Amino acid sequence: MYFRRPIVLFGDSLTQFAFGEADVNLGWASLLCSAYQRRVDVLNRGFSGYNTRHALDLVPKLFTRESYDDVMPVFSTVFLGANDACLPGERQHVPKEEYAENLTQIIRSIRQSSKTKGDEDFPIIVITPPPVDSETWRRELGLYEYFDRSNEIAREYGQAAKEVAKNTNCHCLDTWQLLNGSILETYRQHLSDGLHLSESGNRLLFEGLMALIEAEFPHLAPSKFVDGEYAKEGLQMEEALWSDLC
Amino acid sequence: MYFRRPIVLFGDSLTQFAFGEADVNLGWASLLCSAYQRRVDVLNRGFSGYNTRHALDLVPKLFTRESYDDVMPVFSTVFLGANDACLPGERQHVPKEEYAENLTQIIRSIRQSSKTKGDEDFPIIVITPPPVDSETWRRELGLYEYFDRSNEIAREYGQAAKEVAKNTNCHCLDTWQLLNGSILETYRQHLSDGLHLSESGNRLLFEGLMALIEAEFPHLAPSKFVDGEYAKEGLQMEEALWSDLC
Repeated sequence: MYFRRPIVLFGDSLTQFAFGEADVNLGWASLLCSAYQRRVDVLNRGFSGYNTRHALDLVPKLFTRESYDDVMPVFSTVFLGANDACLPGERQHVPKEEYAENLTQIIRSIRQSSKTKGDEDFPIIVITPPPVDSETWRRELGLYEYFDRSNEIAREYGQAAKEVAKNTNCHCLDTWQLLNGSILETYRQHLSDGLHLSESGNRLLFEGLMALIEAEFPHLAPSKFVDGEYAKEGLQMEEALWSDLC
Repeated sequence: MYFRRPIVLFGDSLTQFAFGEADVNLGWASLLCSAYQRRVDVLNRGFSGYNTRHALDLVPKLFTRESYDDVMPVFSTVFLGANDACLPGERQHVPKEEYAENLTQIIRSIRQSSKTKGDEDFPIIVITPPPVDSETWRRELGLYEYFDRSNEIAREYGQAAKEVAKNTNCHCLDTWQLLNGSILETYRQHLSDGLHLSESGNRLLFEGLMALIEAEFPHLAPSKFVDGEYAKEGLQMEEALWSDLC
């Protein structure tokens, strides 16, 4: 097979920039690529600035039925809400109730697209928006008059995402909690510009995701190298090791 | 389309580890993913320890004809020879003449597999093995008695790879040169363990690759963001910008 089973990362800029940014050079998707080397392809489907309204329209295109015939994803992440949570009146704002409905619909739509081979399914992991350091972010945008985001509202949208995950039998990674969203002095250092992730934020998100996979889906974690060989558990490396070839 | 046109990186550990290693955390493939974000999927087909004999067997599997129907790669890199260049008597060693023949055959075989839609083709970039700091490498392996690699032989295999690239109408990225293989004090810092790339080595390789793409195939470089918008030249981002959607 030319295409390996992929991990599909669907979301906004927090996903699009997850291969690393110029001033960070390390992203949670890159760390994931490294952890899963020679086992899966990580497909980044992050679209900067998108809210759940925009994302909903994209699902049928990104997760087409045909392409699943041989390449059912290992798992998919859905990381949306940071833009929906803009304050009312902002162009990207989506009311919280509609956000929850859209997110539910996105998950259903991804699931529908995966039902080509019997009733096979793959895990979908909902990721909540990170905390927002709104002072830093408005300086970044050059907004001196007003705020377009708030940490408290990011938290509330995250709560809504957790509810959606529960109601749709998905797992949830609570990034707001992971980055310690209740203590500004702590979470500020995990953000690069008040909204996006710094190196430590990227690491925390990656580690949280791997911990979730290992706890809930150990068969989908990469096989571990222990005592000079790869464990039989977890996703195996593609093709023989060179030492078995010569 | 679910799968984007990919960039396919084919090679040994210098490719397999190119999403970053634990002690480096930055890889040339990750930098490439970031540069091409929202435009292509970077498929890492690196197989640690493989020489061109092993790689030759893999080509028909990795580059199957069927999968090209809709997803002709943007370009492919072939980065092999670091293992062939082990000293005679070592398990991975392949004589230089056979190395050149195998590399030629690998390139032909990749080209054949791409000829499904008329005579379309995609660029193949041959990458030469980096310099070897054999003192550091043998300490890394715990070899105190003898050397299994030499910088001079790595250079010679690189020369052979350049010849092959020329004879097969491929482009060549001379990593030995890029990392300043003639000056130990310089290239030593571009290696993490005497054989693999450090952060600066990864950066140099990435920058060299991008410079080659921009010089030789500017239409395959990612579109640039200039004066608040993306240039019409180069590979465009997938889907509309959010600011055009709302």
